[in-house]
Amino acid sequence: MTNFLSLADVADLDALIRSGIDAKANPFADQHLGKNKTIGLIFFNSSLRTRISTQKAAQNLGMNVITMNVGQDSWGLEMEDGVIMNSDKAEHVREAAAVIGRYCNIIGIRAFAELKDRAKDYQEQVMHQFARYAGVPIVNLESATRHPLQSLADCITIEEVKQSNPSLPAKPKVVLTWLPHFKPLPQAVANSFSEWMNARAKAGDVEFVVTHPEGYELAPEFVGNARVIYNQDEAFEGADFIYGKNWSSYTHYGQVLTQDPSWAVTMNDIRLSNHGKFMHCLPVRRNLKVSDEVLDSPHSLVIEQAANREWSAQAVLKEILLTL
Amino acid sequence: MTNFLSLADVADLDALIRSGIDAKANPFADQHLGKNKTIGLIFFNSSLRTRISTQKAAQNLGMNVITMNVGQDSWGLEMEDGVIMNSDKAEHVREAAAVIGRYCNIIGIRAFAELKDRAKDYQEQVMHQFARYAGVPIVNLESATRHPLQSLADCITIEEVKQSNPSLPAKPKVVLTWLPHFKPLPQAVANSFSEWMNARAKAGDVEFVVTHPEGYELAPEFVGNARVIYNQDEAFEGADFIYGKNWSSYTHYGQVLTQDPSWAVTMNDIRLSNHGKFMHCLPVRRNLKVSDEVLDSPHSLVIEQAANREWSAQAVLKEILLTL
Amino acid sequence: MTNFLSLADVADLDALIRSGIDAKANPFADQHLGKNKTIGLIFFNSSLRTRISTQKAAQNLGMNVITMNVGQDSWGLEMEDGVIMNSDKAEHVREAAAVIGRYCNIIGIRAFAELKDRAKDYQEQVMHQFARYAGVPIVNLESATRHPLQSLADCITIEEVKQSNPSLPAKPKVVLTWLPHFKPLPQAVANSFSEWMNARAKAGDVEFVVTHPEGYELAPEFVGNARVIYNQDEAFEGADFIYGKNWSSYTHYGQVLTQDPSWAVTMNDIRLSNHGKFMHCLPVRRNLKVSDEVLDSPHSLVIEQAANREWSAQAVLKEILLTL
Repeated sequence: MTNFLSLADVADLDALIRSGIDAKANPFADQHLGKNKTIGLIFFNSSLRTRISTQKAAQNLGMNVITMNVGQDSWGLEMEDGVIMNSDKAEHVREAAAVIGRYCNIIGIRAFAELKDRAKDYQEQVMHQFARYAGVPIVNLESATRHPLQSLADCITIEEVKQSNPSLPAKPKVVLTWLPHFKPLPQAVANSFSEWMNARAKAGDVEFVVTHPEGYELAPEFVGNARVIYNQDEAFEGADFIYGKNWSSYTHYGQVLTQDPSWAVTMNDIRLSNHGKFMHCLPVRRNLKVSDEVLDSPHSLVIEQAANREWSAQAVLKEILLTL
Repeated sequence: MTNFLSLADVADLDALIRSGIDAKANPFADQHLGKNKTIGLIFFNSSLRTRISTQKAAQNLGMNVITMNVGQDSWGLEMEDGVIMNSDKAEHVREAAAVIGRYCNIIGIRAFAELKDRAKDYQEQVMHQFARYAGVPIVNLESATRHPLQSLADCITIEEVKQSNPSLPAKPKVVLTWLPHFKPLPQAVANSFSEWMNARAKAGDVEFVVTHPEGYELAPEFVGNARVIYNQDEAFEGADFIYGKNWSSYTHYGQVLTQDPSWAVTMNDIRLSNHGKFMHCLPVRRNLKVSDEVLDSPHSLVIEQAANREWSAQAVLKEILLTL
Repeated sequence: MTNFLSLADVADLDALIRSGIDAKANPFADQHLGKNKTIGLIFFNSSLRTRISTQKAAQNLGMNVITMNVGQDSWGLEMEDGVIMNSDKAEHVREAAAVIGRYCNIIGIRAFAELKDRAKDYQEQVMHQFARYAGVPIVNLESATRHPLQSLADCITIEEVKQSNPSLPAKPKVVLTWLPHFKPLPQAVANSFSEWMNARAKAGDVEFVVTHPEGYELAPEFVGNARVIYNQDEAFEGADFIYGKNWSSYTHYGQVLTQDPSWAVTMNDIRLSNHGKFMHCLPVRRNLKVSDEVLDSPHSLVIEQAANREWSAQAVLKEILLTL
């Protein structure tokens, strides 16, 4: 693996999931791989899970870690080519990426969607500019349209549940549901989860359904062959996994079209499902998107998902280290 | 030791002080204890000594360290249970604590008093919520009402002075004095110092006196059996240690009742004492709370106290690591 | 080497340059030197290259690294002696430096010029106060008037080009040129580069020329014996290295006297030179100070210069570690 920007960079998804599960069982087995190797973690946005779990995974592998908050530890970065740089952005990504690539063996980047210009966000300029100029592997720590380390952790989590619950169907039903929120959020986690679940569905590992209010359709390249059901109750029938997430509209880009509280997940929804497990990438706003009752019940997988971020990062970093 | 939230978590104070003094003499003797162990240091507030000394202590013990500034590196955290999370706080401590506890073997937390609601501050919600949900040991890096790593460093400092000054009385007189300041500060350091000195007094190791203007009485559970003298000059008579600190009123909660400059410590005060040593937890505002002359004289222990923060943290982390 | 504040702290510049080149060839050869040693990197200002390269260099040498942003991670620091500390600066450098010096074996400090009071900036108060009170070696990570780690990296870069280009003259012509900018910037990089190039010129290693518009004369102690030419085209004739940098006026202190775009470096300027290499310390504002065409051509050394920051830091830290 040279970069980890999206699912397209994964040669063998099953193997990567197994590698994550192996790392969880034996975290320090590959400590020699990272000796005298450094990862730079560059944050354009806030982070808790990604920041800590990726540092931890790198240290498990024996790497050194350097973190930097852009615009706080350092100055702002210009992403556009050919401009006269007379704005508040003092450095161009061409230099920043190339320079960090000379200090670090791998670079992780977090850069959220701005939700102003859809074409711009969906071009994934920051990731691509870093990948183009850094000269070293780039790891996506959540970009404008994707969060693949989260999706890998989600796959690991579903796989663990399957392995420990022989009563689950061979192709469990996984439902991605939109949740209400008062702020416009990026589509990255929902996009990425769809992308990865479509791959799992294609391989015969899951059945994948998406449910949301009208107007919240995801981009066609992410919905793929998923079945879209606009009635949440119908979608939840027989679900083995309910994956909740809010996102702003893709078609009316970045807009909040409704905050309809009936879309929040409560125990009534769980009861519609097949003793369904509840998943969310966190942070989650309790009682706005999901009820306390669900989150504090044995149905919730949210902490395990977050814990698995360490192992998804470790699986990815290990695969990259093996190519260095 | 499972948590280090306050003196109540210390089984054997003498042993802990000795452990700190041993670490100072031989900082790297226990480096095997922390191998492949990670401490997460979570700051809700600014920090210099605590930030650096705790990192250093953990590294002396062979640990990995991950630091995070809440609301700067990550988003704000909701502490109240049962609320609908529609404020600016995007994540609940239930998730944050549980997740960080999955990445880290020990979590250190700094969260100052807000000085608005006394009952709330004195409930120590942040520490208790983290202790409840993290699933791993919690270390208090200064909470709303206590700063036990500072108090342990203070005990180590006093013990060192006793050991190197045979002429000191067996029960030296320790005076905690209020100092003037224009801003309302928490009572945490004064509370904690009182708590620990009362324990030392009970064991026959010191005589403990508190002096402050009327209205600055500390909470009864912290004053304990200390002698309170409202006349500073009288309190300083024969003092072997003068411990200065400003705090805002506990009874008129969070208020500045006076800024009377006569309460600042100068060489005149030292002369009233028994060649008394001056102590302060730092940062200290020079010439507002204490004169340059005192701080730059051999009477001052403030740098040694701060240096001993490394060894108090190391003693605590070692004791916790031994239980993991 | 006890401190690295300026060229005056360098006993043997040739040896230091060679040490940097050796470190680049064999980065981990001296890893034993830094074992159980800690460097504290204290930033009063933003940093990208310095932050990452110095961390990396210290880790190459086996050191632990602790970074701190003053006024963000910690509170502001008072630098003036004898004042009553009733401003927003809660801690005095006397305590901060002494305390950090108790935790760290070496301290790196970045503190830019404020460009308000020339005498104050040129006194280098922050560096000198830290050097006075820390009790451990201080490394200048860019101060009000100098950036010696940059200058050492620049010397390494020029030396590398000389070694790999036998056709270069024995005494290549190095031209420092002022570049246009809309914001007032410190003179530190230009001062430092002049100081180091004057030393190289004195040793017969280079010919050194400075060019800038009238009113941008550097301080006499930094210009030294350099030839100053006010006509940029004339200065560039036969140049082997063109070192670009903007700085605000020293004589009209901190002012922007002109933004004349004809001073920006383009391929026309390169063509005037002797196939000259372009150098800049970065960050650089593209198409304001230098054209894309120059920066993206083989004439540009800017990425190599930045990469060499790691080796200049490693050479300096190694020399300091050898004295501890």
